[in-house]
Amino acid sequence: MKKFIYPFKDGGKEMKSLLGGKGANLSEMTKLGLPIPQGFVITTEASMKYYEEEKKIWKGLKKEIEQNLKNLEAVTDKNFGGDNPLFVSVRSGAAISMPGMMDTILNLGLNDKTYKLLATQTGNEQFAFNSYKRFIQMFSEVVYGIEKYKYDLLEKELEKNGTEKEAYIKEYKNLFKSEVNFKFPEDPMDQLLAAIEAVFSSWNNPRAIYYRNLNNIPHDIGTGVTVQSMVFGNMGDTSGTGVVFTRNPSCGENKLFGEFLINAQGEDVVAGIRTPKKIEELEAVMPETYKELIDLCNLLEDHYKDMQDIEFTIENNELYILQTRNGKRTANAAIKVATDLVNEGIITKEKAIMMIEPEMISQLLHPTFSEEELANSEVLVTGLAASPGAATGRVYFSSEKIKENNGGILVRLETSPEDIEGMNIADGILTVRGGMTSHAAVVARGMGRCCICGCGSMDLDEEKKEFKVGNITVSEGEYISLNGSTGNVYLGELNKSDSGLTDEFKMILDWSSEIGAMKVLANADTPLDAKVAYDFGANGIGLCRTEHMFFEEKKINHVREMILAENSHERKIALDNILPLQRLDFIGIFEAMKGNSVTVRLIDPPLHEFLPKEKEEKLKLTKSMGITMEDIENRMLKLEELNPMLGHRGCRLGITYPEIYEMQSRAIIEAAIEVKKSGIDVKPEIMIPLVGKVEELGYLRERLVSVVDEVIENSGIELEYKIGTMIEVPRACVTAGEIAKEADFFSFGTNDLTQITFGYSRDDAGKFISDYREKDILEADPFETIDIKGVGKLMEMAVTLGRGEKKNLKIGICGEHGGDPKSIEFFHSIGLAYVSCSPYRIPIAKLAVAQNTIKGRKYHF
Amino acid sequence: MKKFIYPFKDGGKEMKSLLGGKGANLSEMTKLGLPIPQGFVITTEASMKYYEEEKKIWKGLKKEIEQNLKNLEAVTDKNFGGDNPLFVSVRSGAAISMPGMMDTILNLGLNDKTYKLLATQTGNEQFAFNSYKRFIQMFSEVVYGIEKYKYDLLEKELEKNGTEKEAYIKEYKNLFKSEVNFKFPEDPMDQLLAAIEAVFSSWNNPRAIYYRNLNNIPHDIGTGVTVQSMVFGNMGDTSGTGVVFTRNPSCGENKLFGEFLINAQGEDVVAGIRTPKKIEELEAVMPETYKELIDLCNLLEDHYKDMQDIEFTIENNELYILQTRNGKRTANAAIKVATDLVNEGIITKEKAIMMIEPEMISQLLHPTFSEEELANSEVLVTGLAASPGAATGRVYFSSEKIKENNGGILVRLETSPEDIEGMNIADGILTVRGGMTSHAAVVARGMGRCCICGCGSMDLDEEKKEFKVGNITVSEGEYISLNGSTGNVYLGELNKSDSGLTDEFKMILDWSSEIGAMKVLANADTPLDAKVAYDFGANGIGLCRTEHMFFEEKKINHVREMILAENSHERKIALDNILPLQRLDFIGIFEAMKGNSVTVRLIDPPLHEFLPKEKEEKLKLTKSMGITMEDIENRMLKLEELNPMLGHRGCRLGITYPEIYEMQSRAIIEAAIEVKKSGIDVKPEIMIPLVGKVEELGYLRERLVSVVDEVIENSGIELEYKIGTMIEVPRACVTAGEIAKEADFFSFGTNDLTQITFGYSRDDAGKFISDYREKDILEADPFETIDIKGVGKLMEMAVTLGRGEKKNLKIGICGEHGGDPKSIEFFHSIGLAYVSCSPYRIPIAKLAVAQNTIKGRKYHF
Repeated sequence: MKKFIYPFKDGGKEMKSLLGGKGANLSEMTKLGLPIPQGFVITTEASMKYYEEEKKIWKGLKKEIEQNLKNLEAVTDKNFGGDNPLFVSVRSGAAISMPGMMDTILNLGLNDKTYKLLATQTGNEQFAFNSYKRFIQMFSEVVYGIEKYKYDLLEKELEKNGTEKEAYIKEYKNLFKSEVNFKFPEDPMDQLLAAIEAVFSSWNNPRAIYYRNLNNIPHDIGTGVTVQSMVFGNMGDTSGTGVVFTRNPSCGENKLFGEFLINAQGEDVVAGIRTPKKIEELEAVMPETYKELIDLCNLLEDHYKDMQDIEFTIENNELYILQTRNGKRTANAAIKVATDLVNEGIITKEKAIMMIEPEMISQLLHPTFSEEELANSEVLVTGLAASPGAATGRVYFSSEKIKENNGGILVRLETSPEDIEGMNIADGILTVRGGMTSHAAVVARGMGRCCICGCGSMDLDEEKKEFKVGNITVSEGEYISLNGSTGNVYLGELNKSDSGLTDEFKMILDWSSEIGAMKVLANADTPLDAKVAYDFGANGIGLCRTEHMFFEEKKINHVREMILAENSHERKIALDNILPLQRLDFIGIFEAMKGNSVTVRLIDPPLHEFLPKEKEEKLKLTKSMGITMEDIENRMLKLEELNPMLGHRGCRLGITYPEIYEMQSRAIIEAAIEVKKSGIDVKPEIMIPLVGKVEELGYLRERLVSVVDEVIENSGIELEYKIGTMIEVPRACVTAGEIAKEADFFSFGTNDLTQITFGYSRDDAGKFISDYREKDILEADPFETIDIKGVGKLMEMAVTLGRGEKKNLKIGICGEHGGDPKSIEFFHSIGLAYVSCSPYRIPIAKLAVAQNTIKGRKYHF
Repeated sequence: MKKFIYPFKDGGKEMKSLLGGKGANLSEMTKLGLPIPQGFVITTEASMKYYEEEKKIWKGLKKEIEQNLKNLEAVTDKNFGGDNPLFVSVRSGAAISMPGMMDTILNLGLNDKTYKLLATQTGNEQFAFNSYKRFIQMFSEVVYGIEKYKYDLLEKELEKNGTEKEAYIKEYKNLFKSEVNFKFPEDPMDQLLAAIEAVFSSWNNPRAIYYRNLNNIPHDIGTGVTVQSMVFGNMGDTSGTGVVFTRNPSCGENKLFGEFLINAQGEDVVAGIRTPKKIEELEAVMPETYKELIDLCNLLEDHYKDMQDIEFTIENNELYILQTRNGKRTANAAIKVATDLVNEGIITKEKAIMMIEPEMISQLLHPTFSEEELANSEVLVTGLAASPGAATGRVYFSSEKIKENNGGILVRLETSPEDIEGMNIADGILTVRGGMTSHAAVVARGMGRCCICGCGSMDLDEEKKEFKVGNITVSEGEYISLNGSTGNVYLGELNKSDSGLTDEFKMILDWSSEIGAMKVLANADTPLDAKVAYDFGANGIGLCRTEHMFFEEKKINHVREMILAENSHERKIALDNILPLQRLDFIGIFEAMKGNSVTVRLIDPPLHEFLPKEKEEKLKLTKSMGITMEDIENRMLKLEELNPMLGHRGCRLGITYPEIYEMQSRAIIEAAIEVKKSGIDVKPEIMIPLVGKVEELGYLRERLVSVVDEVIENSGIELEYKIGTMIEVPRACVTAGEIAKEADFFSFGTNDLTQITFGYSRDDAGKFISDYREKDILEADPFETIDIKGVGKLMEMAVTLGRGEKKNLKIGICGEHGGDPKSIEFFHSIGLAYVSCSPYRIPIAKLAVAQNTIKGRKYHF
């Protein structure tokens, strides 16, 4: 018969998917001989079977629970509901840590009888009373969803009335009964079964489902339930509880970091209701225990080979570990910890790379407030620097408002799991209560969202939708700025500036380059972009768009002359004027890339995009072209299109007006020759957009080769170049075998390919894409993360067909998806040679590439 | 050693691809013992080897020619260039008849010596002189490209001067020499080899290549060369030549049809220079020969089991057959001949179906001038009714002008192979010279182009670009109308009207229905269209678009109210007004289809297409909606899209505004129930457009099923219905396996699928598609004939994936391509169950389907 329950002593850390992270680690620590209050774990399989059994605890499971409880009574030498009463905590714990699920019920087993025994045994009636009150409230909230504020109101009233303890408890139970229509369960076993069911049910509450969707966690892995004998941190001044990180989760420094509260239970720290003390201060209070804690921390980090996030409780000077897990951390800390662990010889480079979430490091690449800006701004108020970064935005006081406005600064008394969705959308988070390990802080760091916590001098009025600091009032919709690295809050919008790379970050990037099987190129259109990309370690430029160059002041009038030319003679005159300017563009870019390949895409958008809108600009043209305003208007009218995205653009322009592509190719090659003459190597690649038929590419290739070869021959310089094509039209994918015959390389233009494969105009799809997301028709925005089943399938076909024709065909991708880690995983799986993305995404892409190389995973359709 | 030459006696009709059509038939007739002037055929393989040998007659071939000539001398008891001189004709002849190639050189072997011998032997110096003159001219033109008019001018001058025969010939030869810089070859063997090379070369002249491209004839099958001993039709009044069809090629009547000329050579008849006499008149002139001809005609038709087109020559009362082939015919004749042959027991139904070119019968379905229109119009001039049908258009006097204007009426003295391209583009053809078997007549009938020939009373001035009839002048660009069935020409544009189906045509359609493996449905949006389709034998409606219905006067204002509604309540009110009207639309269509399935596509285009453009219309809306003009304008502005083709349309509308599709589905089912109650069976199918993700279809299906099932349940009537989807987005093709789970049927929307797969907006692609055709980047317009390699490949994937999921999934196609025979061949090959096309294309589609079923051919990618 299948076993659904494991006592801690029978588990271990390798059983994470069966026991959940919490249970597995408690078991592991038990095996390590650490001071762990004993208990047992109900497996994740049991939680899934619970749904099969139509949400009932089936007989067999009940029997197992009873048996394990009996064993626990034996181990602890106590009895459940008996004279030497055993109390337990009940916690959820999936294999992957998941805020949003039920977390914890403490002190379970308390009833009118055991309450009195606890008071007598400990000689601390107040402690027993507090524990009982808290249990009733927690049980009510977690198991039956009775809102906490109702007990808070009742508490206020009872305190005011000076109600006696016995009557007090009665009122608590009356509140319970009035909410659920039955009596508060006195039988500890009834309490336990109800608590276990609550954990099982919480697996499918909306917040948990949302979190799993957000983080791509499967819905069928289930949660474990840990039932553990209680130790009490609230038994007086020789007791306490706390959370400690083995390193600093904010900056990564190798130094214990944490908080504790004397005479408190664990939930008091996490919930952020009382502001706790720094862990260092424990040394003064309980030196022995502090030393013991440090030793245990070292032992656990060595054992798990990663920074640990440890919960502990001290009961009458006795230290117990209640939980350990890999600690959440900021991107900076993640990088510091990972590189330190490598340098300390604890882990390999590969392990270090796998420890860093690529999306997370984007916060390091994004702007911060400049020193100057900060120096000139007055601090409104200061809180705890819970999650670094800089954020500006309008103030909103609820997650709903943040969602409505698609961003802003979320300001809350404290956050709760209900806020996860809003926190994810918010630009920054500011709370009045709570410490560095409060819900807001932990979640924000995980999301890479800027966050300031425990900003107690703020006077928040949620009803009025405003907060006050002294006599300054900030109302909903006003702008504030947060500096998550210092905890300072500012009025108004502060300007942001770029942040540099730390040495540790560079180290990670170097290791990623060593390990990564795909090259990471940049999408860069200017020498400046090219330089940024080069500094981030780009292996070249995968997409240099030429259309932005055409908008430059010096060029635009000539470009317009070219477009409005009525014959190829007029057009050539305009192009002759553009050629030297275009050549200069490429010289700067080639120089910046220092010998790396540069892929230049010939002009792509429909020509009418370049035409003047202002009258003044049109007048300029009448003069330079010697034609009337009416002529200009007429020629412009001819260029209008109903669906420009599917119109006369890309190589279609190059075919109807071969002079344009010839000029561009000449400029590219002339620039390359000039740079090469100056001693810098150049590898130019000419890329033709929007090819759907091999004949298009063949036609253009023949023409461009003849122009380019002549330029090279006349220069007397040896220069190699490539001519390739974007693959961005579905027809190109299904006929890629033919197209490969004329192409030196393929580069997937996944923006257009997504657009055309779905038939969604990027400009217009906004009208229904949000509706599609809400109705679960689209699981993700296909313009952000590649649509594997559709677009991906076509890409895979193109790779197979292209390489079938040319075994070593160079194939990469240069759409927005090139910087998206999830998409990179797919690109790696189909064997692309490179991704090309915006300069600021290069580090993320490098890391994602390295991780996928290490995982070596394959997709299957 | 490979044999490159076959004497007639060694060949046969089954050797067509080796000997060409002409050679194979001459061989066949030789075997049948018919009176054939003997000769030999140089194989098509030789003509291809000629290109391999760098366009030289290689030694081995020369030897074979000499040997075969020797044998021919023995058979004919004459000698080539000798005292009893042998003369030969040299003709080209590919396996597939091909105008545009070199046709014939007659009288080869004549030189100053044999000319005199011929004159002496026949005692007819004039005949010998005429033959020699003609030989020099033909040889000059055909072998060396010397334009005929130069000899015509010279002839006029020499006639005027009364030049003597000897000097006359000398002048002819001088002209030759002045053109090519060498002397006219006197040696008959030099003449022969040059003529053979000219045939070989003509295979790749531009006209021949154009013709092959136009008709999808491979370029590597080559042409045969027939060298045949001459018989002379121009030896006086006991000689003659003619062309005869065993049945009437214009109407198909089973009665000899043809023309002859006394004292003439074959070219005189074909070139249309002298107007020949009707074949019946031969009986009076040469009763014996006429009887013999009739017997031979019967024999040949019986043997070939098809209508024959026979060339004959009478030399001194001796009848010779020079050629037989299956005769080109009009669509009407093709149908009549085919059905007659079946009824006469000569061929099977399958053979009959294969004898008719589907595209050809479109002329029968296309309009003719109504009797009334003709009665009220004055005839300008009358010619020969060479190819039936009705045409109106502007007059142009050259093929270039026709091409420039993409149509019009081509008016020529006579047409030549250079005109083929123009004739193909022209709406109609009118010639001054030439008979029913002239170049113009034969080619026009083959193309199904309306044509009037031999309109001799027209006075054509090509230089002035006008023609006169009496004192009426018609200039370039003016409109005329041709009635190809009567030969009457009218001034101006006559209105056209529909033509009915003949009994024979219905017979062919019935046989096609019996045999065809695919159903042929109609694209019909109105009860009238539905009726036409039903009468043409449609098996149902494959595409009933609902958007046109929305434009009806009664509905359009409500439709606009619906579109501009700001919430779903307002929208429902408008929809409630549309519902009863929409229901009526469907009732009419269901009734017309009498129990056949009707697939209704829910609304597809972007909503802004329905919005008013005129101020008056907008005013109407302000009143009915009670909002201001500004509101109207603002709401309209919101609906604008940059790329409506890729925007908020199709099922995307249905998902954001479910009320619309719900109303339409309700109307469909309520109409079906009403019609069913009246005793007519109904098979409604609801089709959802533009699906790219199974989730879209699933979402809508669930909603529509619940609406529809309720309607059915409340009615108390049993009604089966289907819900399926268009497949018209590339993503739908590659994920068709998933989509099939929610679909009862697939219908390929090949218009949109082509548009999106290529990324060509139909509205805008005109700008480059013509350029693409000219530059050979597109071999055909992909919106007319399906692009097999790209769009077809995606369709094949969709079929495979869809049927992989649902083995018996009903899959068809309802784009414009559904009525295109070449596309139908492909659709048949990938196993589609039906094609749906416009009512007037149904007969063509039925025939094409039957033919492909008979061929049973498979495509391979």
